[in-house]
Amino acid sequence: MRYSSETVERAVHELSKLPGIGRKSAQRLVFFLLKRPAEDVKILAQALLDLHEKVKYCSICYNITEQDPCHICSDVHRDQSLICVVEEANDVVALEKTGEFKGLYHVLGGAMSPLDGIGPDNLKMRELLTRLTGQVHEIILATNPNTEGEATALYLVKLLRPLELKLTRIARGIPIGADIEYADEITLSRAIEGRVTL
Amino acid sequence: MRYSSETVERAVHELSKLPGIGRKSAQRLVFFLLKRPAEDVKILAQALLDLHEKVKYCSICYNITEQDPCHICSDVHRDQSLICVVEEANDVVALEKTGEFKGLYHVLGGAMSPLDGIGPDNLKMRELLTRLTGQVHEIILATNPNTEGEATALYLVKLLRPLELKLTRIARGIPIGADIEYADEITLSRAIEGRVTL
Repeated sequence: MRYSSETVERAVHELSKLPGIGRKSAQRLVFFLLKRPAEDVKILAQALLDLHEKVKYCSICYNITEQDPCHICSDVHRDQSLICVVEEANDVVALEKTGEFKGLYHVLGGAMSPLDGIGPDNLKMRELLTRLTGQVHEIILATNPNTEGEATALYLVKLLRPLELKLTRIARGIPIGADIEYADEITLSRAIEGRVTL
Repeated sequence: MRYSSETVERAVHELSKLPGIGRKSAQRLVFFLLKRPAEDVKILAQALLDLHEKVKYCSICYNITEQDPCHICSDVHRDQSLICVVEEANDVVALEKTGEFKGLYHVLGGAMSPLDGIGPDNLKMRELLTRLTGQVHEIILATNPNTEGEATALYLVKLLRPLELKLTRIARGIPIGADIEYADEITLSRAIEGRVTL
Protein backbone atom coordinates (compact mmCIF):
# COMPACT_ATOMS: atom_id res chain seq x y z
CA MET A 1 0.00 0.00 0.00
CA ARG A 2 1.35 3.41 -0.98
CA TYR A 3 0.52 6.60 0.88
CA SER A 4 -0.25 9.86 -0.78
CA SER A 5 3.16 10.89 0.52
CA GLU A 6 6.54 9.27 -0.07
CA THR A 7 7.77 10.80 3.16
CA VAL A 8 5.06 9.11 5.21
CA GLU A 9 5.79 5.84 3.43
CA ARG A 10 9.50 6.14 4.26
CA ALA A 11 8.86 6.99 7.92
CA VAL A 12 6.51 3.99 8.25
CA HIS A 13 9.12 1.79 6.56
CA GLU A 14 11.93 2.94 8.87
CA LEU A 15 9.86 2.65 12.06
CA SER A 16 8.66 -0.83 11.18
CA LYS A 17 12.29 -2.03 11.15
CA LEU A 18 12.34 -1.58 14.94
CA PRO A 19 11.73 -4.64 17.13
CA GLY A 20 8.12 -5.10 18.22
CA ILE A 21 6.83 -2.49 15.76
CA GLY A 22 4.87 -3.84 12.83
CA ARG A 23 3.55 -1.87 9.87
CA LYS A 24 0.28 -1.05 11.61
CA SER A 25 1.99 0.30 14.73
CA ALA A 26 4.48 2.23 12.60
CA GLN A 27 1.57 3.81 10.71
CA ARG A 28 -0.05 4.77 14.00
CA LEU A 29 3.21 6.32 15.24
CA VAL A 30 3.63 8.34 12.05
CA PHE A 31 0.12 9.78 12.22
CA PHE A 32 0.71 10.54 15.89
CA LEU A 33 3.95 12.37 15.08
CA LEU A 34 2.30 14.32 12.27
CA LYS A 35 -0.18 15.67 14.79
CA ARG A 36 2.48 16.63 17.34
CA PRO A 37 4.25 19.99 17.08
CA ALA A 38 7.32 19.88 14.81
CA GLU A 39 9.46 20.82 17.83
CA ASP A 40 8.56 17.59 19.67
CA VAL A 41 9.56 15.49 16.67
CA LYS A 42 12.86 17.38 16.47
CA ILE A 43 13.55 16.61 20.13
CA LEU A 44 12.83 12.91 19.55
CA ALA A 45 15.01 12.76 16.41
CA GLN A 46 17.85 14.54 18.21
CA ALA A 47 17.60 12.15 21.18
CA LEU A 48 18.03 9.25 18.76
CA LEU A 49 20.93 10.90 16.92
CA ASP A 50 22.66 11.62 20.24
CA LEU A 51 22.71 7.90 21.01
CA HIS A 52 25.53 7.26 18.56
CA GLU A 53 26.98 10.72 18.98
CA LYS A 54 27.47 10.66 22.75
CA VAL A 55 27.11 7.12 24.05
CA LYS A 56 30.23 4.97 24.00
CA TYR A 57 31.41 1.81 25.70
CA CYS A 58 33.40 1.83 28.93
CA SER A 59 36.93 0.63 28.12
CA ILE A 60 36.97 -1.48 31.29
CA CYS A 61 33.55 -3.15 31.64
CA TYR A 62 32.05 -2.41 28.17
CA ASN A 63 28.87 -1.02 29.69
CA ILE A 64 27.38 1.95 27.82
CA THR A 65 28.52 5.28 29.21
CA GLU A 66 29.21 8.89 28.33
CA GLN A 67 32.42 9.12 30.34
CA ASP A 68 35.26 6.60 30.19
CA PRO A 69 35.67 4.74 32.53
CA CYS A 70 31.98 4.54 33.39
CA HIS A 71 30.57 5.77 36.69
CA ILE A 72 30.52 2.24 38.12
CA CYS A 73 34.13 1.38 37.22
CA SER A 74 35.36 4.73 38.52
CA ASP A 75 33.43 4.47 41.81
CA VAL A 76 36.05 3.66 44.49
CA HIS A 77 33.30 2.75 46.97
CA ARG A 78 32.30 -0.32 44.99
CA ASP A 79 33.72 -3.72 45.80
CA GLN A 80 36.63 -4.12 43.37
CA SER A 81 37.02 -7.82 44.22
CA LEU A 82 33.68 -8.83 42.73
CA ILE A 83 32.80 -8.86 39.01
CA CYS A 84 29.32 -9.70 37.74
CA VAL A 85 29.38 -10.88 34.11
CA VAL A 86 26.24 -10.05 32.12
CA GLU A 87 25.21 -10.28 28.47
CA GLU A 88 23.94 -6.79 27.76
CA ALA A 89 24.00 -3.25 29.12
CA ASN A 90 20.31 -3.47 30.03
CA ASP A 91 21.13 -6.35 32.38
CA VAL A 92 23.30 -3.88 34.32
CA VAL A 93 20.31 -1.54 34.54
CA ALA A 94 18.12 -4.35 35.91
CA LEU A 95 20.73 -5.45 38.48
CA GLU A 96 21.49 -1.89 39.59
CA LYS A 97 17.78 -1.38 40.19
CA THR A 98 17.86 -4.04 42.94
CA GLY A 99 20.43 -1.98 44.86
CA GLU A 100 21.80 -5.32 46.12
CA PHE A 101 25.00 -5.59 44.13
CA LYS A 102 27.95 -3.42 45.10
CA GLY A 103 30.67 -4.93 42.91
CA LEU A 104 31.72 -4.23 39.32
CA TYR A 105 30.26 -5.47 36.04
CA HIS A 106 31.53 -6.92 32.81
CA VAL A 107 29.27 -6.67 29.77
CA LEU A 108 29.96 -9.42 27.21
CA GLY A 109 27.88 -7.79 24.48
CA GLY A 110 25.72 -10.86 23.88
CA ALA A 111 25.74 -14.62 24.40
CA MET A 112 27.34 -17.44 22.45
CA SER A 113 25.08 -18.58 19.66
CA PRO A 114 26.72 -20.73 16.99
CA LEU A 115 23.58 -20.57 14.81
CA ASP A 116 23.88 -16.79 14.62
CA GLY A 117 27.64 -17.04 14.17
CA ILE A 118 28.39 -15.57 17.60
CA GLY A 119 31.37 -17.31 19.19
CA PRO A 120 33.70 -16.38 22.09
CA ASP A 121 35.69 -14.06 19.81
CA ASN A 122 32.62 -11.90 19.20
CA LEU A 123 32.15 -11.35 22.92
CA LYS A 124 34.29 -9.40 25.39
CA MET A 125 35.80 -12.55 26.94
CA ARG A 126 39.46 -11.80 26.34
CA GLU A 127 38.79 -8.37 27.82
CA LEU A 128 37.40 -10.06 30.94
CA LEU A 129 40.56 -12.15 31.34
CA THR A 130 42.78 -9.07 31.23
CA ARG A 131 40.78 -7.58 34.12
CA LEU A 132 41.44 -10.53 36.42
CA THR A 133 44.39 -9.19 38.37
CA GLY A 134 45.03 -10.34 41.93
CA GLN A 135 42.39 -7.91 43.20
CA VAL A 136 39.41 -9.91 41.86
CA HIS A 137 38.21 -12.74 44.10
CA GLU A 138 34.83 -13.72 42.74
CA ILE A 139 33.12 -13.79 39.35
CA ILE A 140 29.31 -14.00 39.30
CA LEU A 141 28.04 -15.40 36.02
CA ALA A 142 24.75 -13.59 35.40
CA THR A 143 24.08 -14.55 31.78
CA ASN A 144 20.46 -15.35 30.96
CA PRO A 145 19.09 -18.76 32.03
CA ASN A 146 18.37 -19.83 28.43
CA THR A 147 20.32 -22.05 26.01
CA GLU A 148 22.70 -19.33 24.82
CA GLY A 149 23.21 -17.86 28.27
CA GLU A 150 23.88 -21.26 29.86
CA ALA A 151 26.32 -22.19 27.08
CA THR A 152 28.14 -18.89 27.60
CA ALA A 153 28.30 -19.48 31.37
CA LEU A 154 29.66 -23.00 30.82
CA TYR A 155 32.30 -21.70 28.42
CA LEU A 156 33.35 -19.05 30.95
CA VAL A 157 33.61 -21.65 33.72
CA LYS A 158 36.01 -23.67 31.55
CA LEU A 159 37.98 -20.54 30.68
CA LEU A 160 38.20 -19.19 34.23
CA ARG A 161 38.56 -22.44 36.22
CA PRO A 162 42.41 -22.50 35.94
CA LEU A 163 42.61 -19.04 37.54
CA GLU A 164 41.42 -20.38 40.92
CA LEU A 165 38.84 -17.69 41.51
CA LYS A 166 35.50 -18.18 43.20
CA LEU A 167 33.03 -18.74 40.34
CA THR A 168 29.31 -18.40 41.05
CA ARG A 169 26.13 -18.48 38.97
CA ILE A 170 22.97 -16.49 39.80
CA ALA A 171 20.25 -18.67 41.34
CA ARG A 172 17.64 -20.07 39.01
CA GLY A 173 14.29 -21.08 40.44
CA ILE A 174 10.67 -20.08 40.90
CA PRO A 175 10.31 -16.31 40.57
CA ILE A 176 8.90 -14.45 43.59
CA GLY A 177 5.13 -14.12 43.38
CA ALA A 178 4.76 -17.03 40.94
CA ASP A 179 2.82 -20.23 41.45
CA ILE A 180 4.61 -23.59 41.72
CA GLU A 181 1.58 -25.13 40.02
CA TYR A 182 2.19 -23.12 36.86
CA ALA A 183 5.99 -23.19 36.79
CA ASP A 184 7.52 -25.07 33.85
CA GLU A 185 9.32 -28.36 34.50
CA ILE A 186 12.82 -27.07 33.82
CA THR A 187 12.47 -24.13 36.19
CA LEU A 188 10.98 -26.43 38.80
CA SER A 189 13.77 -29.01 38.56
CA ARG A 190 16.33 -26.18 38.76
CA ALA A 191 14.55 -24.90 41.87
CA ILE A 192 14.79 -28.34 43.53
CA GLU A 193 18.39 -28.84 42.41
CA GLY A 194 19.35 -25.45 43.81
CA ARG A 195 17.49 -25.79 47.11
CA VAL A 196 19.12 -24.09 50.09
CA THR A 197 19.47 -25.33 53.66
CA LEU A 198 17.41 -23.38 56.18
CA MET B 1 15.73 4.49 37.46
CA ARG B 2 18.68 6.38 36.00
CA TYR B 3 20.96 4.96 33.35
CA SER B 4 24.69 5.37 33.34
CA SER B 5 24.07 7.75 30.46
CA GLU B 6 21.86 10.85 30.37
CA THR B 7 21.56 10.42 26.61
CA VAL B 8 20.11 6.93 26.96
CA GLU B 9 17.75 8.18 29.66
CA ARG B 10 16.57 11.00 27.39
CA ALA B 11 16.05 8.71 24.38
CA VAL B 12 14.04 6.28 26.54
CA HIS B 13 12.01 9.18 27.89
CA GLU B 14 11.25 10.58 24.42
CA LEU B 15 10.36 7.19 22.92
CA SER B 16 8.05 6.30 25.80
CA LYS B 17 5.93 9.36 24.97
CA LEU B 18 4.81 7.58 21.78
CA PRO B 19 1.47 5.75 21.82
CA GLY B 20 1.74 2.04 22.62
CA ILE B 21 5.35 2.34 23.75
CA GLY B 22 5.93 2.00 27.47
CA ARG B 23 9.20 2.46 29.34
CA LYS B 24 10.22 -1.17 28.87
CA SER B 25 9.67 -1.12 25.10
CA ALA B 26 11.42 2.24 24.84
CA GLN B 27 14.40 0.76 26.67
CA ARG B 28 14.44 -2.18 24.29
CA LEU B 29 14.30 0.16 21.27
CA VAL B 30 17.18 2.26 22.59
CA PHE B 31 19.43 -0.75 23.14
CA PHE B 32 18.47 -2.00 19.68
CA LEU B 33 19.38 1.36 18.12
CA LEU B 34 22.68 1.46 20.02
CA LYS B 35 23.60 -1.83 18.37
CA ARG B 36 22.63 -0.71 14.86
CA PRO B 37 25.12 1.21 12.71
CA ALA B 38 24.99 4.99 13.30
CA GLU B 39 23.97 5.41 9.64
CA ASP B 40 20.69 3.49 10.18
CA VAL B 41 19.76 5.66 13.14
CA LYS B 42 20.49 8.76 11.05
CA ILE B 43 18.15 7.50 8.32
CA LEU B 44 15.39 6.88 10.88
CA ALA B 45 15.84 10.30 12.52
CA GLN B 46 15.82 12.02 9.12
CA ALA B 47 12.64 10.16 8.09
CA LEU B 48 10.95 11.49 11.24
CA LEU B 49 12.23 15.04 10.70
CA ASP B 50 11.03 14.96 7.09
CA LEU B 51 7.47 14.35 8.29
CA HIS B 52 7.05 17.94 9.40
CA GLU B 53 9.45 19.25 6.79
CA LYS B 54 7.73 17.83 3.71
CA VAL B 55 4.26 16.62 4.59
CA LYS B 56 1.48 19.18 4.46
CA TYR B 57 -2.30 19.16 4.25
CA CYS B 58 -4.20 19.31 0.97
CA SER B 59 -5.97 22.70 0.83
CA ILE B 60 -9.10 21.02 -0.59
CA CYS B 61 -9.64 17.76 1.32
CA TYR B 62 -7.13 18.18 4.21
CA ASN B 63 -5.60 14.78 3.58
CA ILE B 64 -1.82 14.61 4.13
CA THR B 65 0.14 15.19 0.94
CA GLU B 66 3.42 16.49 -0.44
CA GLN B 67 1.82 18.32 -3.36
CA ASP B 68 -1.16 20.65 -3.12
CA PRO B 69 -3.85 19.76 -4.14
CA CYS B 70 -3.25 16.10 -3.26
CA HIS B 71 -3.09 13.36 -5.88
CA ILE B 72 -6.70 12.36 -5.20
CA CYS B 73 -8.17 15.87 -5.48
CA SER B 74 -6.18 16.55 -8.64
CA ASP B 75 -7.17 13.25 -10.30
CA VAL B 76 -9.72 14.13 -13.00
CA HIS B 77 -10.70 10.47 -13.38
CA ARG B 78 -12.23 10.35 -9.92
CA ASP B 79 -15.93 10.94 -9.39
CA GLN B 80 -16.18 14.63 -8.45
CA SER B 81 -19.84 14.26 -7.40
CA LEU B 82 -19.09 12.00 -4.43
CA ILE B 83 -17.33 13.04 -1.22
CA CYS B 84 -16.50 10.58 1.54
CA VAL B 85 -16.06 12.31 4.92
CA VAL B 86 -13.57 10.62 7.27
CA GLU B 87 -11.99 11.50 10.60
CA GLU B 88 -8.30 10.99 9.89
CA ALA B 89 -5.82 10.66 7.05
CA ASN B 90 -5.25 6.99 7.90
CA ASP B 91 -8.93 6.33 7.20
CA VAL B 92 -8.25 7.46 3.62
CA VAL B 93 -5.40 4.94 3.46
CA ALA B 94 -7.72 2.16 4.66
CA LEU B 95 -10.49 3.08 2.21
CA GLU B 96 -8.11 3.47 -0.73
CA LYS B 97 -6.78 -0.03 0.01
CA THR B 98 -10.21 -1.48 -0.82
CA GLY B 99 -10.00 -0.04 -4.33
CA GLU B 100 -13.82 0.30 -4.17
CA PHE B 101 -14.22 4.01 -3.76
CA LYS B 102 -13.64 6.28 -6.73
CA GLY B 103 -14.90 9.59 -5.36
CA LEU B 104 -13.15 12.29 -3.34
CA TYR B 105 -12.45 12.53 0.38
CA HIS B 106 -12.76 15.11 3.10
CA VAL B 107 -10.63 14.66 6.20
CA LEU B 108 -12.16 16.30 9.29
CA GLY B 109 -9.03 15.96 11.39
CA GLY B 110 -10.77 14.14 14.23
CA ALA B 111 -14.23 13.63 15.69
CA MET B 112 -16.33 15.77 17.99
CA SER B 113 -15.51 15.07 21.60
CA PRO B 114 -16.79 17.66 24.11
CA LEU B 115 -14.81 16.01 26.92
CA ASP B 116 -11.56 16.65 25.05
CA GLY B 117 -12.74 20.11 24.05
CA ILE B 118 -13.09 19.18 20.37
CA GLY B 119 -16.14 20.84 18.86
CA PRO B 120 -17.24 21.54 15.26
CA ASP B 121 -14.91 24.55 15.05
CA ASN B 122 -11.85 22.36 15.66
CA LEU B 123 -12.75 20.15 12.70
CA LYS B 124 -12.73 20.95 8.98
CA MET B 125 -16.53 21.27 8.77
CA ARG B 126 -16.75 24.81 7.43
CA GLU B 127 -14.19 23.77 4.80
CA LEU B 128 -16.50 20.91 3.81
CA LEU B 129 -19.42 23.29 3.32
CA THR B 130 -17.39 25.51 0.98
CA ARG B 131 -16.68 22.47 -1.21
CA LEU B 132 -20.36 21.69 -1.75
CA THR B 133 -20.90 23.39 -5.08
CA GLY B 134 -23.51 22.13 -7.49
CA GLN B 135 -21.11 19.40 -8.66
CA VAL B 136 -21.42 17.31 -5.48
CA HIS B 137 -24.40 14.95 -5.31
CA GLU B 138 -23.65 12.60 -2.45
CA ILE B 139 -21.83 12.77 0.88
CA ILE B 140 -20.83 9.49 2.51
CA LEU B 141 -20.32 9.86 6.24
CA ALA B 142 -17.51 7.46 7.10
CA THR B 143 -16.65 8.57 10.64
CA ASN B 144 -15.90 5.77 13.10
CA PRO B 145 -18.86 3.81 14.51
CA ASN B 146 -18.10 4.86 18.10
CA THR B 147 -19.62 7.56 20.33
CA GLU B 148 -17.52 10.42 18.94
CA GLY B 149 -17.82 9.28 15.33
CA GLU B 150 -21.60 8.83 15.55
CA ALA B 151 -22.01 12.24 17.21
CA THR B 152 -19.94 13.81 14.44
CA ALA B 153 -22.03 12.07 11.77
CA LEU B 154 -25.26 13.25 13.42
CA TYR B 155 -23.95 16.80 13.58
CA LEU B 156 -23.01 16.68 9.91
CA VAL B 157 -26.46 15.35 8.97
CA LYS B 158 -28.06 18.35 10.72
CA LEU B 159 -25.59 20.70 9.05
CA LEU B 160 -25.95 19.27 5.55
CA ARG B 161 -29.64 18.38 5.51
CA PRO B 162 -30.78 21.84 4.23
CA LEU B 163 -28.50 21.50 1.19
CA GLU B 164 -30.66 18.72 -0.28
CA LEU B 165 -27.80 16.40 -1.06
CA LYS B 166 -27.90 12.62 -0.82
CA LEU B 167 -26.45 11.82 2.63
CA THR B 168 -25.33 8.28 3.37
CA ARG B 169 -23.57 6.53 6.27
CA ILE B 170 -21.25 3.54 5.85
CA ALA B 171 -22.90 0.26 6.85
CA ARG B 172 -22.34 -0.96 10.38
CA GLY B 173 -22.78 -4.66 11.11
CA ILE B 174 -20.99 -7.94 11.68
CA PRO B 175 -17.48 -7.80 10.18
CA ILE B 176 -16.69 -10.37 7.47
CA GLY B 177 -15.15 -13.51 8.95
CA ALA B 178 -16.55 -12.85 12.43
CA ASP B 179 -18.91 -15.03 14.43
CA ILE B 180 -22.47 -13.87 15.20
CA GLU B 181 -22.17 -15.77 18.48
CA TYR B 182 -19.32 -13.54 19.64
CA ALA B 183 -20.54 -10.21 18.24
CA ASP B 184 -21.44 -7.60 20.86
CA GLU B 185 -25.10 -6.60 21.33
CA ILE B 186 -24.77 -3.13 19.83
CA THR B 187 -23.11 -4.38 16.65
CA LEU B 188 -25.70 -7.13 16.38
CA SER B 189 -28.67 -4.77 16.77
CA ARG B 190 -27.10 -2.46 14.18
CA ALA B 191 -26.72 -5.44 11.86
CA ILE B 192 -30.42 -6.28 12.21
CA GLU B 193 -31.49 -2.65 11.93
CA GLY B 194 -29.44 -2.25 8.76
CA ARG B 195 -30.53 -5.54 7.12
CA VAL B 196 -30.75 -5.43 3.32
CA THR B 197 -33.41 -6.98 1.05
CA LEU B 198 -32.09 -9.86 -1.07
